[in-house]
Amino acid sequence: MRAAFMYGAGDVRVIDVPDPAVKHPTDAVVRIILACICGSDLHPYHRMPATPQGKSMGHESLGVVEETGADVASVRRGDLVVVPFAWQDNTCDFCRVGLQTSCRHGGFWNAGDVGGMQADAVRVPLADGTLVKLPVAADSALLPSLLTLSDVLGTGHHAAIRAGVGPRTDVTVIGDGAVGLMAVLAAKRLGAERIILMGRHKDRTDLGREFGATDVVAERGAEGVELVRQLTGGDGTRTVLECVGHPPAYQQALGVVRAGGVISRVGVPQYTEGDIGWNLFGRNLTLTGGPAPARNYIEELMPDILDGTIEPGRVFDRTVGLGDVPDGYRAMDRREALKVLVRP
Amino acid sequence: MRAAFMYGAGDVRVIDVPDPAVKHPTDAVVRIILACICGSDLHPYHRMPATPQGKSMGHESLGVVEETGADVASVRRGDLVVVPFAWQDNTCDFCRVGLQTSCRHGGFWNAGDVGGMQADAVRVPLADGTLVKLPVAADSALLPSLLTLSDVLGTGHHAAIRAGVGPRTDVTVIGDGAVGLMAVLAAKRLGAERIILMGRHKDRTDLGREFGATDVVAERGAEGVELVRQLTGGDGTRTVLECVGHPPAYQQALGVVRAGGVISRVGVPQYTEGDIGWNLFGRNLTLTGGPAPARNYIEELMPDILDGTIEPGRVFDRTVGLGDVPDGYRAMDRREALKVLVRP
Repeated sequence: MRAAFMYGAGDVRVIDVPDPAVKHPTDAVVRIILACICGSDLHPYHRMPATPQGKSMGHESLGVVEETGADVASVRRGDLVVVPFAWQDNTCDFCRVGLQTSCRHGGFWNAGDVGGMQADAVRVPLADGTLVKLPVAADSALLPSLLTLSDVLGTGHHAAIRAGVGPRTDVTVIGDGAVGLMAVLAAKRLGAERIILMGRHKDRTDLGREFGATDVVAERGAEGVELVRQLTGGDGTRTVLECVGHPPAYQQALGVVRAGGVISRVGVPQYTEGDIGWNLFGRNLTLTGGPAPARNYIEELMPDILDGTIEPGRVFDRTVGLGDVPDGYRAMDRREALKVLVRP
Repeated sequence: MRAAFMYGAGDVRVIDVPDPAVKHPTDAVVRIILACICGSDLHPYHRMPATPQGKSMGHESLGVVEETGADVASVRRGDLVVVPFAWQDNTCDFCRVGLQTSCRHGGFWNAGDVGGMQADAVRVPLADGTLVKLPVAADSALLPSLLTLSDVLGTGHHAAIRAGVGPRTDVTVIGDGAVGLMAVLAAKRLGAERIILMGRHKDRTDLGREFGATDVVAERGAEGVELVRQLTGGDGTRTVLECVGHPPAYQQALGVVRAGGVISRVGVPQYTEGDIGWNLFGRNLTLTGGPAPARNYIEELMPDILDGTIEPGRVFDRTVGLGDVPDGYRAMDRREALKVLVRP
């Protein structure tokens, strides 16, 4: 089969690899119908050291179950399923409290002998805990939106959940990438009254307004912070959803959060050290967030997609075949595309 | 009157200064009966650059109201009061949500024209919002415990509250100073089932056991982390109360906190940058804490002191007169004293 591998910064190739097969009785093999490229895939695209063996890519997909191991009970050949961006047993003590990304027996894609999903097919470990059946046909127009359950919608939702967003909350979302826009949508869905979106790409922030942003601040850095403060009586917002992962976004979050408030990060931090001195401590700020347990949120979010309440699939603005995945990376890197759908 | 001033690292002197007087109609002047030296006073004691004008010291006291401004309604001359470690109106929107250390009109002691409480007397701004009457006589044996309401008990309690400690919580407390011991007491009071105290001074950790610690780990660094993990089935505890403020304590906190857990800091961080990369993010950890709104907790905590349920005053193991405050600093710095009571 074909699979996208990254060999270093800017170097993505689609190569032939052996077809995946069931290795353990709890495995399933899924033939991929839709996958996509994640904003977090751009981090190695910018910085990955060259490596001759490459690294498989992709951690979001939906597809059709092709084969199941003897112990798999919840799905069977032919089922249409969504594959969340980590695999998990969904029964351990961490999973039971909704922290599937810390599952005792789970893990992430593209690591060890588990491949990626920018590919024709994938072996899914712990299929019963990982796969969720989709109650639609394989040609449903809802598929792109349902694909977002695998990561990007759950990630935006996680940002809002960890920040405690609810009715009457005020929110600043930092970043107008797909995760930022999903954070807007999630905050709106959870009842946030005021949602300030910080982003400088008008086409994206326009979509953000449709998703629920009440204000848009295009300026960045100190100027952007000042504008958010002006919008909020000088105080900033109680919650800040940081959906970028670069140090300036964290600094911006510190600047726009109200005393006693919460900064919730879901952009994978591309840094180790950050300011956690008096600027964080002195105002009793809380810093939270992490890799979204996407699996945990699927049952909650899916009905709103099925009944059309939310249309997260609108973040996809370009579609490529598997062979053109390298073009998809380039388009996202150049910001010619917001989020790229892959149809193997 | 006499007041302790710090002129640089290791240089505390008791000098004569003008008696405080009411400046604003909302002020009161309090004649100090008991004050104390705080662990946080040791930070400038170690590092303060030499300064000819010096800096007044002390932010914890109880005493007798000597004079009140025309607008002060809640206390009057002769009342015995406790003075929390920040001053506040206790009516603004931040105060109303229990964040008095971010009061819109308040501030901290020893700044601007507001003096310190290692002194014979102090001018208290916003007396109605700041002072709390004590329902005991000025010679009550409970005074040392009631003094802890001004800061150290409230600070330990704040660490536990921000971490969400409650019944069945497991807790690691880092630091066996007075704040750490108060955090143990507060966690116990809030119902924590397991309280692991990390500290290497046996006399202090023994007191910690009396306050409610179920386990003591004297080792530090990687060795200490490993021992806490062994005590907790490899996972660490859901909550970690960091009561030190130095970088190794933060690193230790990262090491002993369970995935999805909370690190709550109340030791004033003596650093700006810290590790908030994948080590914090990858396990969905939350970092919280800050300067305790001691005023907020007085009504809740005082009854337990009055009825003898808790005896936080046991952290005081040395008493000095005001003239001997410099000796008190030395004793705390050399760890000959845990916390020093000052009787002007």
